[in-house]
Amino acid sequence: MTGLFDGTFARGGAAAAVSDAAWIDALLDVEAALARAAARLGLVPTTAADAVTRACAEPAGLDLATVVAHAADAGNPVPPLVRVLRSAVGARDAVAVHVGATSQDVLDTALVLLARRAGAAIDRDLALAAAAAAGLAGAHRDDVVMGRTLMQQALPTTFGLKAAGWLSGLDGARARLRAVDAGLPVQFGGAVGTLAGLDGSGTALRAALAAELGLTTPPVAWHTGRLPVADLAGALGAAAGVVASVALDVVLLAQSEVAEVAEVSEQRGGSSAMPHKNNPVAAISARACARRAPGLVATLLGAMEQEHERAAGAWHSEWPTLTALLATVGSGAAWLAESLASLRPDSARMAATVSAAEAPVLAAAATDLLAQRLGRGAAHELVAEAVRTASATGRPLADLLAEGAGLDPAQLRTGPDVGEAGAQVDAVLAEHRALTEGEA
Amino acid sequence: MTGLFDGTFARGGAAAAVSDAAWIDALLDVEAALARAAARLGLVPTTAADAVTRACAEPAGLDLATVVAHAADAGNPVPPLVRVLRSAVGARDAVAVHVGATSQDVLDTALVLLARRAGAAIDRDLALAAAAAAGLAGAHRDDVVMGRTLMQQALPTTFGLKAAGWLSGLDGARARLRAVDAGLPVQFGGAVGTLAGLDGSGTALRAALAAELGLTTPPVAWHTGRLPVADLAGALGAAAGVVASVALDVVLLAQSEVAEVAEVSEQRGGSSAMPHKNNPVAAISARACARRAPGLVATLLGAMEQEHERAAGAWHSEWPTLTALLATVGSGAAWLAESLASLRPDSARMAATVSAAEAPVLAAAATDLLAQRLGRGAAHELVAEAVRTASATGRPLADLLAEGAGLDPAQLRTGPDVGEAGAQVDAVLAEHRALTEGEA
Amino acid sequence: MTGLFDGTFARGGAAAAVSDAAWIDALLDVEAALARAAARLGLVPTTAADAVTRACAEPAGLDLATVVAHAADAGNPVPPLVRVLRSAVGARDAVAVHVGATSQDVLDTALVLLARRAGAAIDRDLALAAAAAAGLAGAHRDDVVMGRTLMQQALPTTFGLKAAGWLSGLDGARARLRAVDAGLPVQFGGAVGTLAGLDGSGTALRAALAAELGLTTPPVAWHTGRLPVADLAGALGAAAGVVASVALDVVLLAQSEVAEVAEVSEQRGGSSAMPHKNNPVAAISARACARRAPGLVATLLGAMEQEHERAAGAWHSEWPTLTALLATVGSGAAWLAESLASLRPDSARMAATVSAAEAPVLAAAATDLLAQRLGRGAAHELVAEAVRTASATGRPLADLLAEGAGLDPAQLRTGPDVGEAGAQVDAVLAEHRALTEGEA
Amino acid sequence: MTGLFDGTFARGGAAAAVSDAAWIDALLDVEAALARAAARLGLVPTTAADAVTRACAEPAGLDLATVVAHAADAGNPVPPLVRVLRSAVGARDAVAVHVGATSQDVLDTALVLLARRAGAAIDRDLALAAAAAAGLAGAHRDDVVMGRTLMQQALPTTFGLKAAGWLSGLDGARARLRAVDAGLPVQFGGAVGTLAGLDGSGTALRAALAAELGLTTPPVAWHTGRLPVADLAGALGAAAGVVASVALDVVLLAQSEVAEVAEVSEQRGGSSAMPHKNNPVAAISARACARRAPGLVATLLGAMEQEHERAAGAWHSEWPTLTALLATVGSGAAWLAESLASLRPDSARMAATVSAAEAPVLAAAATDLLAQRLGRGAAHELVAEAVRTASATGRPLADLLAEGAGLDPAQLRTGPDVGEAGAQVDAVLAEHRALTEGEA
Repeated sequence: MTGLFDGTFARGGAAAAVSDAAWIDALLDVEAALARAAARLGLVPTTAADAVTRACAEPAGLDLATVVAHAADAGNPVPPLVRVLRSAVGARDAVAVHVGATSQDVLDTALVLLARRAGAAIDRDLALAAAAAAGLAGAHRDDVVMGRTLMQQALPTTFGLKAAGWLSGLDGARARLRAVDAGLPVQFGGAVGTLAGLDGSGTALRAALAAELGLTTPPVAWHTGRLPVADLAGALGAAAGVVASVALDVVLLAQSEVAEVAEVSEQRGGSSAMPHKNNPVAAISARACARRAPGLVATLLGAMEQEHERAAGAWHSEWPTLTALLATVGSGAAWLAESLASLRPDSARMAATVSAAEAPVLAAAATDLLAQRLGRGAAHELVAEAVRTASATGRPLADLLAEGAGLDPAQLRTGPDVGEAGAQVDAVLAEHRALTEGEA
Repeated sequence: MTGLFDGTFARGGAAAAVSDAAWIDALLDVEAALARAAARLGLVPTTAADAVTRACAEPAGLDLATVVAHAADAGNPVPPLVRVLRSAVGARDAVAVHVGATSQDVLDTALVLLARRAGAAIDRDLALAAAAAAGLAGAHRDDVVMGRTLMQQALPTTFGLKAAGWLSGLDGARARLRAVDAGLPVQFGGAVGTLAGLDGSGTALRAALAAELGLTTPPVAWHTGRLPVADLAGALGAAAGVVASVALDVVLLAQSEVAEVAEVSEQRGGSSAMPHKNNPVAAISARACARRAPGLVATLLGAMEQEHERAAGAWHSEWPTLTALLATVGSGAAWLAESLASLRPDSARMAATVSAAEAPVLAAAATDLLAQRLGRGAAHELVAEAVRTASATGRPLADLLAEGAGLDPAQLRTGPDVGEAGAQVDAVLAEHRALTEGEA
Repeated sequence: MTGLFDGTFARGGAAAAVSDAAWIDALLDVEAALARAAARLGLVPTTAADAVTRACAEPAGLDLATVVAHAADAGNPVPPLVRVLRSAVGARDAVAVHVGATSQDVLDTALVLLARRAGAAIDRDLALAAAAAAGLAGAHRDDVVMGRTLMQQALPTTFGLKAAGWLSGLDGARARLRAVDAGLPVQFGGAVGTLAGLDGSGTALRAALAAELGLTTPPVAWHTGRLPVADLAGALGAAAGVVASVALDVVLLAQSEVAEVAEVSEQRGGSSAMPHKNNPVAAISARACARRAPGLVATLLGAMEQEHERAAGAWHSEWPTLTALLATVGSGAAWLAESLASLRPDSARMAATVSAAEAPVLAAAATDLLAQRLGRGAAHELVAEAVRTASATGRPLADLLAEGAGLDPAQLRTGPDVGEAGAQVDAVLAEHRALTEGEA
Repeated sequence: MTGLFDGTFARGGAAAAVSDAAWIDALLDVEAALARAAARLGLVPTTAADAVTRACAEPAGLDLATVVAHAADAGNPVPPLVRVLRSAVGARDAVAVHVGATSQDVLDTALVLLARRAGAAIDRDLALAAAAAAGLAGAHRDDVVMGRTLMQQALPTTFGLKAAGWLSGLDGARARLRAVDAGLPVQFGGAVGTLAGLDGSGTALRAALAAELGLTTPPVAWHTGRLPVADLAGALGAAAGVVASVALDVVLLAQSEVAEVAEVSEQRGGSSAMPHKNNPVAAISARACARRAPGLVATLLGAMEQEHERAAGAWHSEWPTLTALLATVGSGAAWLAESLASLRPDSARMAATVSAAEAPVLAAAATDLLAQRLGRGAAHELVAEAVRTASATGRPLADLLAEGAGLDPAQLRTGPDVGEAGAQVDAVLAEHRALTEGEA
C-alpha cells in the first residue's frame, strides 16, 4: 500500500522525475555518457563504451538489489553501482566504467539531470497555470472587482488585472527556472578535483561529458562550491512563493462571504462531516505543497557550508531535500493549474460588491475633488472624518460629504475608476505571448 | 526498485513507523477506538463497535485502492476511508463508524499516534547512543585529551568528559521527547469543534477516546491551535541538534590529522575512488540526517498560522513535514548509535597530543602562578606576550617564561590539570543511571 | 534618527530587555554574581567581591567605549569587558573578577538572564492578550457565529468558543515559556569545561553562581551542548505560532465582507491613499512580528551543531538570532494584546450571517435525521446531492429535502446546534483561572 | 551605549546602508524622484517638484520625530512621512508630494534602493575577498596540499586550486547579486495597482519614476507579487553560502593539528582564559554572520504568500528580515575579506603533510598501475585490502603492495600527481580578470 498522500503531494510529473527509479536512470545516464565521452577522446575503446551504454540503458539487467543493499556503506550509492556495472559489462569493457571519476562526480551530475527533468515537469505545469491565468485575464479584462488591501475593501480594480498579476508571477517564475536550467553544470573533477590520473585529458573529458549531457562546463569542480544547488533552491523557492500567493488569492476569493470565484470540479471538494461544502481543494492543496518549500530551501542554503574537497554530511543532506523540493513545487504547480483551469469567476457578484461598497468609491472621488481645492493632505483628513461619522451615526456618507465639504452628490456618483487596468493587462498578455511563442 | 537512499535516510525504526502502511494502521486504530468509546458510552451498539474494530484490525480486507484513489479529492484521505469502512462493515454496523467526528479528528489523532510510535523508535536509538556514550565516558573517565576551542588547541580535558557531554545531551533530548509524548492529546471536536450532533455526550466521548488510545484530553479541540505539533517539532529539532553536534565531534576527532577516534566497521567507510580511505560514515550520515531537521521545524512552526476552524493548506502541509522530521531524526539517531557503538578511541594518541602541545599547558600554569603575584589580568598579558615571542622567534616558551617572568621551569612542568572532569563525569553517569533505571 | 520601525517590531517590553544596554547590564550582573559566589566560598576576599559588585552596578562608571571598540577582536565582548572591569576595581580587587571563568561562561549566563528578562516581558504581554481573550470568551460565551473550515462556511459555533480556543493557545504558550524559564541553567566550566584552576572548588562555585542568579545547576558545562537554547527557541517559536494564528483569525473576521469584529482605535488603522479604510493594524502587525520567528528558530536549531569545547561561529550566531527572536515574539504578543483589547465583536452581524446561511444548518439537520433511517453514509450522499441541485437550479434546499428525502421542513428549521460549546468555554476559563490565580 | 555586537555583525558597509537614517534617505529619494517624474510629465508644476526635491534632500529639516512617533499607526512609516513632507513644503507645493502613489509604492521602491546600496557595499567586500583569493591562487598555484574528503586525507591537490575554488564561488556570488541588481524594478501602482486617479498618465509616470531612479519598469505593480524580493533573497542566500564555505575551509586549515594557514593580525584572536591562543577570528566571525542567512531567506520566501492587493503582515515582515539579511551577508563578506587578506599559508607544512601521508599516494599509484592489468574494480579491492592489512599489522604499505600485487616499490614512489590543477587555476583566474576588468 503506497501513495496515500501522493494525490496531494506528488501531483504532476515532477515527483516521478525524482523517484528512486529516476535516480537510477540518471546515475546510469551519467556513467554511459562518461564512457562515450572517454571513447570519443580515445581514452577507452569505443566497443567498451558501447557495452557500458547498452548496460546502462537497461537497468533491469543490473543487480540493483545489491546496489540498494550497499548504498549506505560508503555514504552514497555510486560505489556499489559502479561495482555492479563493472561486473555486468565484464572485465574487458569495465575499463570504460567510471573513467577518472569520483562518486560525487556521478551523483552530482545525476542530481543535475534529475533537477532538469523534474524542472521540465514543473515548467509544464506552471505553463498550464499560466495559460489558465492568461485566459482569465483576457476573458475578464474589464470586469470590475473590489480591490482589497490589508484584507479590507479598498478601491475597485478589475479581475483581469488580478489575473494578469498572477500571470506575471507565473511567467516570472518560469523564466527564473529556465535561466537556472540553462546554466546547470556538469560535475567532474576526480577524487579531489585535480583531474589526476587522466594524463592531462581531464578538462577535455569534463567538456565532452558536459556536451554528451547538454550541460555547461565549469572551470573547476564544484564539489564543495554549491552555487548550482543554491540557484535551483532559489528559483524553486521563488516558484513556490508565486504558487502560494496565487492559490491564496483563490482561497480568499472563494470564501463563502466573498464568493467571487469557485473551483468547479466533479470530483473534488467534499467533506466527511458536512454534505453542503464545496471546498476549493485544488488551491488549498497548492498552498499545502508550496508552504513546504521555504524550509527546504533554507536547508539547502545552510548545506552550502561544505568542508575541504568533499563535505561530511552537508552534501548528503542535499539529496532528499532537493528532491522533496522539486516534488513539492511541482505538485503545487500542478494543483494550481487544476485550480485555475477549473475556476469559475462570478463577475456579477464582483460587480455587485463594488456597487454595494459605496464608501470606497465615494471617498476616493470626494478626495480627488477636494484635493484640487484643499491639497491632498487636508482632503484626505476631511474625508476620513466623514467616513468615521458615517460609520458612527449610520448617516449616508454622501450626505455627510455634501454637507461637510460642500460636494455635489451627483459629482461623486460616477462609475468606478479602474485607471489603466486594461492597458496593464494587455502589457502582461503581450509579454506572455512573447514568452510562449517559441514553445508552440 | 525502491529504497535507494533508505539505508542513509531511513535508518532505524522511525521511518517504518511513518510509512503509508503505518498511516493506514493509525487511521484505523482511531476509527476503531472511536467506535469502542462510543459503545462504552452507549451511543452505538457494542456489536457494531466490535464489527468496526474487527474491520479496522485487518486493513488487507479493506478496499484501500479506493481510499488511495480518492485520498486527494477532499484534501485528505479520511472521507474515502470512512466510506470504505462503512461499506465493509455493512449498513447496520456503519452506525458505529466515525461517530461525531470530522476528518481532522481522525487524521490529527492518527498523526499523534504516528508521532508516538516513531518517537518510541527514536527513543530506542537515542538510548542506544546514550548507552554507548555512557560506556565511553566510564571507560575513558580519566583519559586526557586536548580540549579545543574555536577549533584551536586550548587546554587539556578528558575524553570521559567529552563523552559525558554527549551523554548529557542525548539524555536531555530523550527527556524532552518523553515529556512531549506524555502530553500528546487526542483530537476530537466534530466539524467545527462544538461537538454538535452528539446530544451532549461529546466531551465524554472525547475523554473516552483519549482513554482508549492512552492520550490526554484537552478542554477544546486544537483543530487550528497547533501547540501539540509545535511541541513535537521543538523536541525533535532539539534532538536533531544533539545528534548533529555529537556526530560533528566524531567527524572532527576522526580527521586524519587528529586521529583520536575511528569508527571500526567491516562494512562501511570505503570510497569509489580511493582504496585507502576509512571514512566515519555513520557519523557523517548522522549529520546528514540531522541537518534536515531545522528547516522542517521551521515549516511546522510557520504552519501554526491556521485559519478559523480548519486551515486551508497549512494543516495539510504538516503531514509530509512531520513524518519527514520523525524519519530523519530517527535515522540520525540510529546512525549515531552505530557510530558511537563502533567508536575506537586512541587514548595513547590523545595523550601524546597533549604532551606535544606544550604551549597551552605551560601558559595555563604560568598564568596561574603569576596571577597570585600580578593579578590575573596582568598575568594573562605577560604570558600572551611570551607566547607571541616564542612563536615569532622559535625560542622555547619555558625559557621565555623563566626569563621574562622569573618562573621556575620545574614549577611549570606539571601534568595536565583537568580540574573536576572526573567528578562531572560521575555526576552525568549518575543522572543517566537514574533516567534509565526504570527502563530495565 | 533611530527607531523608525520600532513601533511595529519593538513593541512591548521585550525589545528593551535585549538592547545593548541590557546586554551590558546582564554581563556585569554575571561578573558581580561570580565575584560574590567566589567570596562566599572563600576563594576571594569579600571586600574585593564587594568592589566588583559596586563597579558592576554602575556601568556608567566603566569605560564601555573601549569595550565596544574591542568587542570583536576576540569574537565576543567579554575579554575587553573583563579588562575594563579589572582596571576599574584596581589591582588589589581585580582578584575577584572573572574567577575561574571563560568568556563563554559569562556570555552564555548573560544570554540566559536576557532571555529570562525578555521572557518576563513577553509573558506580561501574553497575559494581557489572554486576559482579553478570556473577557471575550466570557462575554460572548453563547453568541452564535458561523464556523468556517477551509475558509468556507461550515456549521455554527460560538464566538465564545473561538475566543476560548485563542485563550487556550495563549495560556499554553505561556505555560511552555514558563517551564523553559524555570529550567534555565547557569553556564560555568572554565576554558574547556573541566573547572581547572579552581582547586576543586569549581562545581561548588558553579552551584553558588547559579544560586546567586536564581538559575539551575547543570552537571556539566553546556558550551557546545545547546539544549537550553533549543528550549528557548522551541517555546518562543510556539508562542509566535499562537500569536500568528489568533491574529490571522482577527484579520479574517475583520474582512469587509465578514465584518464580525473590528479593532477600535483612535490612532491606528488609517491609509495614506484611502481615507475610508479602517485596517486592523494591531493584528496585522502581530502577524508581521510572528512570521519572523520560524526562520530564526531554524537558525538556532541549526546552530546546535557546535565543535569540540567551543564553536567557531555557530555559538556567535546565536546572539543576534535569539535576541531578535525574543524581541519579535514580544512585539507580536504586545500587538496581539492591543488587538484583542480593542476588539469589538458584532454579535448581531454574526447571528445574521448564521441565519442567512441556510444550507449548512439545514444540511446538518437533515443528515442527522436521515442517518437514523439510512445510515450516515447514505444520508450524507443524499443531502449532498440535494445541495448540488439547489445550487444548480436555485430551488430552495428545504423544498428539495422535503421532496427527495421525505423530510418535514418544520423538523429541519431548528435553531443552530452549537453542541457543547458553552461547556468547553467554561472548561478553558476554569483552566485559565487556575493558571492566573497565583499571579494576582 | 550602542553597537556592542556591531564589530561582529555589522562589519563592512552594508549595515550602515540599511540603517534607519538610510531608510529615511531612501524614502525621501523616492518621493523626490516621484515629484520630478510627475513634473516632467506635466502633472505638477516644476516649481513644486523642485520644492519637494529640496525638502527631501535635507532630512534634518523635517519633523522626523513625528514620523517615528506615528510610523506604526498605519502599519508603515509612509503616511506620517507624507504628512510631514506636505507640511514642510507648504500647501501650494504639496500638490507634488506622493502623486498617485500608495504607501507601498514608496516603501517598496525605497526597499529596492536600500538593497541596491547595501548590495554595492556587499559587492565591494566580496570583491576584496575575491581579490585576496585570486592573490592566493596565483601565488600558490602549484603548492601541493593534501586534499581531504569527508574530513579524511584523500589525495594531493594544490593550495592554488583550493583558492581558485574559493575565487570561483566568490565571483559567482558577485555575478548573481549583480544580475539581480540590474533587474530591480520600481514599484508604482497606486492604491490597488490600477494607476487610477492619474487620468491615464500612470504607466508613463511609472516609467518616468523608474528612469529617475535607474530601476526597471514592470508591466504591473508587484504589490503582492514578490519575485523581486525572492530574487534578492536567493542571491544573498547564495552569497552567504559561499562566504560560509570559504570561511569553514579557513577554520579547518587553521586547526592546530593541521596548521596549514593562519590569520595574522595584530588585534584579533585572543582569549580571555587562554593567553596562548591565536584564533582565526575573522573566519569564525564570517561563519557566524553567514549562518544567519538561510533562516532569513526562508522567512522572505514564506512571506511571498500575500493577500489580494496588499498583504496583511507578510509584506511588513520583509523589512526587518531583508535588512538583517543584507547586513549579515555584508558583514560576513567583510570578515571574509579580512580573513583572506590576512591569511598566511604555510606551504612547507602543507608539503610535509603530503609527504608524510604515504598511504593515499601509494594507494592511488598502485591502483592506477594495477588497473591496467586487473581492471579498476579488482585493483581497487586489492589495494584496499593491503591498506587494511597495513593498518592492522603496522607493516609498511609499500611492502605489502610489493608482495601481494607484485608491484615494484620504486614505481610507486613518484611525486604527488595533481593532474590539471594548474590549468584549472589559470582558467578561474582568467574568468576573474574578465569579470573585474570593467571595474578598474
